Amino acid sequence: MEKEMVVGLLGFGTVGSGVHQLIEAHQDELVHKLGRGVKVKRVLVYDLQKAREVQVNPELLTNDASEILNDPEIGIVIEVMGGIEQARNYILRAFEKGKHVVTANKDLMALHGPELQSAALENGCDLYYEASVAGGIPIIRGIEDGLVPDRIESIMGIVNGTTNYILTKMDDEGVSYEAALKEAQELGFAEADPAGDVGGMDAARKMAIMARLAFSIPVDLADVEVQGIEQLALDDLQFGKQLGLTMKLIGRAHFQDNRVELSVEPAFLPNTHPLAAVKNENNAVYVYGKAMGETMFYGPGAGSLPTATAVLSDTVAVIRNMILGVNGKQVIAPRFEKVLKEPEQRNGQYYFRLQVQDRSGTFTVIASLFNKLDISFERILQNPVNESDNSGLAEIIVVTHQTTLDRIDAAREELEKTEVVTGVKSCFRIEGGLNS
Amino acid sequence: MEKEMVVGLLGFGTVGSGVHQLIEAHQDELVHKLGRGVKVKRVLVYDLQKAREVQVNPELLTNDASEILNDPEIGIVIEVMGGIEQARNYILRAFEKGKHVVTANKDLMALHGPELQSAALENGCDLYYEASVAGGIPIIRGIEDGLVPDRIESIMGIVNGTTNYILTKMDDEGVSYEAALKEAQELGFAEADPAGDVGGMDAARKMAIMARLAFSIPVDLADVEVQGIEQLALDDLQFGKQLGLTMKLIGRAHFQDNRVELSVEPAFLPNTHPLAAVKNENNAVYVYGKAMGETMFYGPGAGSLPTATAVLSDTVAVIRNMILGVNGKQVIAPRFEKVLKEPEQRNGQYYFRLQVQDRSGTFTVIASLFNKLDISFERILQNPVNESDNSGLAEIIVVTHQTTLDRIDAAREELEKTEVVTGVKSCFRIEGGLNS
Repeated sequence: MEKEMVVGLLGFGTVGSGVHQLIEAHQDELVHKLGRGVKVKRVLVYDLQKAREVQVNPELLTNDASEILNDPEIGIVIEVMGGIEQARNYILRAFEKGKHVVTANKDLMALHGPELQSAALENGCDLYYEASVAGGIPIIRGIEDGLVPDRIESIMGIVNGTTNYILTKMDDEGVSYEAALKEAQELGFAEADPAGDVGGMDAARKMAIMARLAFSIPVDLADVEVQGIEQLALDDLQFGKQLGLTMKLIGRAHFQDNRVELSVEPAFLPNTHPLAAVKNENNAVYVYGKAMGETMFYGPGAGSLPTATAVLSDTVAVIRNMILGVNGKQVIAPRFEKVLKEPEQRNGQYYFRLQVQDRSGTFTVIASLFNKLDISFERILQNPVNESDNSGLAEIIVVTHQTTLDRIDAAREELEKTEVVTGVKSCFRIEGGLNS
Repeated sequence: MEKEMVVGLLGFGTVGSGVHQLIEAHQDELVHKLGRGVKVKRVLVYDLQKAREVQVNPELLTNDASEILNDPEIGIVIEVMGGIEQARNYILRAFEKGKHVVTANKDLMALHGPELQSAALENGCDLYYEASVAGGIPIIRGIEDGLVPDRIESIMGIVNGTTNYILTKMDDEGVSYEAALKEAQELGFAEADPAGDVGGMDAARKMAIMARLAFSIPVDLADVEVQGIEQLALDDLQFGKQLGLTMKLIGRAHFQDNRVELSVEPAFLPNTHPLAAVKNENNAVYVYGKAMGETMFYGPGAGSLPTATAVLSDTVAVIRNMILGVNGKQVIAPRFEKVLKEPEQRNGQYYFRLQVQDRSGTFTVIASLFNKLDISFERILQNPVNESDNSGLAEIIVVTHQTTLDRIDAAREELEKTEVVTGVKSCFRIEGGLNS
């Protein structure tokens, strides 16, 4: 048998220990598919003494990154430590030493992906990052290889498991955002500080990485408009149900006529949409290609072994490249300028929940306001807030037809200024239309 | 720019004309991603004079395969003609001439895949076949690359669009099998002779191809047990609904403890299962890997441009290999012996619909029959056939707990012999359990 391939691990947290475990457990698969084994020679950790759930030979552990980055026997560095600056620094040092890199670091790839890819290319090295988007789901490969001849026009992703878990609980069990978050924290699906997940930034990072790849444009994380689920009211999920709609935190990346639109926001989908069926902590990425039409990749968006599977599938790809002598060839330069769509170029159908004075004439005022802005309605629901309510207020749900975002923004502003409207309680995008 | 890559097309039907169209329309994508263009030099057709929907330069057409197979300028042969013997012959001749082959031919790959792969290997050629399974969905890549370090234990596929269209119609609109088939034929989703689709053989071919790859075993098409949807009664779909179940034509491939089980059959899934949401002519493949857990690939299982996208993604892979000089390396030999599971090793939960005499004591007889065979019940529904029925007959739905196939077979046999049972109207597998 050929000499085994030697790798070094930077980090031994959830993903790192999963990678180690999987390399041990599936060694025979690797030998069969590569004609040689894979050996973890060194593992970088902060604390050599820390008690660990996953068994590891203590002699592999080091707290000195140089023992990995300067070891000529180590051909591949697997970065699963997280964080930005130190990880970036280690990866750049790895490339300088001619080592290939596999990373699961979405924060880093979202911020510094292009820089790292250039550095890889200059040094004739590979940089693979499947695990940085949607955990175990092979979506980077799907975009890069499966859809390579197509023109991808749109990606919609449920790419954050924490928020999808919370929304599933709210939707299925009718519990509040706060209660669902607490349960998610107790079960380990949400962190003690959930801001990065529930605020949408985690999803935004993944959308930036995918958009860059799918559209061949230079995307910055700041190009993604982000809105989280922290303010979400159960009422809206329930009105959505009456309309046949399900609420999800949707990452959207659109590219048409050389203009791009990037966002993460809570949005409604028809119940029949494949993404509406994605429950709990699962992730899915829905891709629309000009030739292909609709396709979707579904699976576990996080977790030790699923993410480790993605890391190791990249490692196998790097090793195959090493055997064939073809590393450092996979980067394709951006092809188009990045021009963001203006609000008047952004189309969508929207849902408004308005709190209004429950008296005759209210509806006429609202209708004429929308009419003045050239926004037409597809559906209107009128619900009293609740039956024992003596406030003299009512709620109206307005579903617009397709219109442009500048008009929606203008409508929000005008509605807030209108006397019979006591509050614009919410406004959400509807993706894919009402079921008729 | 580098010299363009020259390909020859064998066949110019739905897929072939889609490939031609896509190469023309997406030439700039190809140039960007390959650093060179792709040119179709010759197209093999039966009838040079036939009127064609897709425009093609008549000078490209030939009815002599040698003009493609013997042309030294053509590096890649794209086989989209279908059929078995002639296609096999042309592909073997292409390999002898050192040409790489991309095929969309599931019939051929299911029957002769291993022979063709050996021939490719011997001649240092590539053989890619993504389009042979589930049209545009990149499932072969998903198994080969994305899940490469994992141990795949199970694949369930909705891999025939015609039958899924028919089942969706029956389920959503309550129409009979015959009416749904007729509609599918009128809309072009079913052929005039639908036997290969509705009988399950088309799905069986795709399952054989995937099982071979996923489990590293030598699978023959004859190893797949096949049952079609021709006998399906609307009644069963409706009783399924009462139980929270959806009927699909499910291809199953299981591999555990070095034993394999392969089948295509109409089976029930819980409504919450990701496969239950796959509607109309769409396909999906659900994969369970030991480390990864559940993942699903969804999309168009047929159609000119989606299938052409898969063919062209393979073509791009072959061209990349040519540029890098690494063709003919992708075949991995089977790793395990093929041992089929015996009925007593095959587990499952089953649904029976029994027509019985509507009198006291009937249920006790049935219960003791199942009890004798050590099969326990999870749920029983008793429905009179219909209210105005004076036949003295009733229907009982029995849902068993997990048991083995030999017991289910024995139960069917015993039930048929039992006097109070006037007929075993149906018996279906339930995949994934009842929702509780």
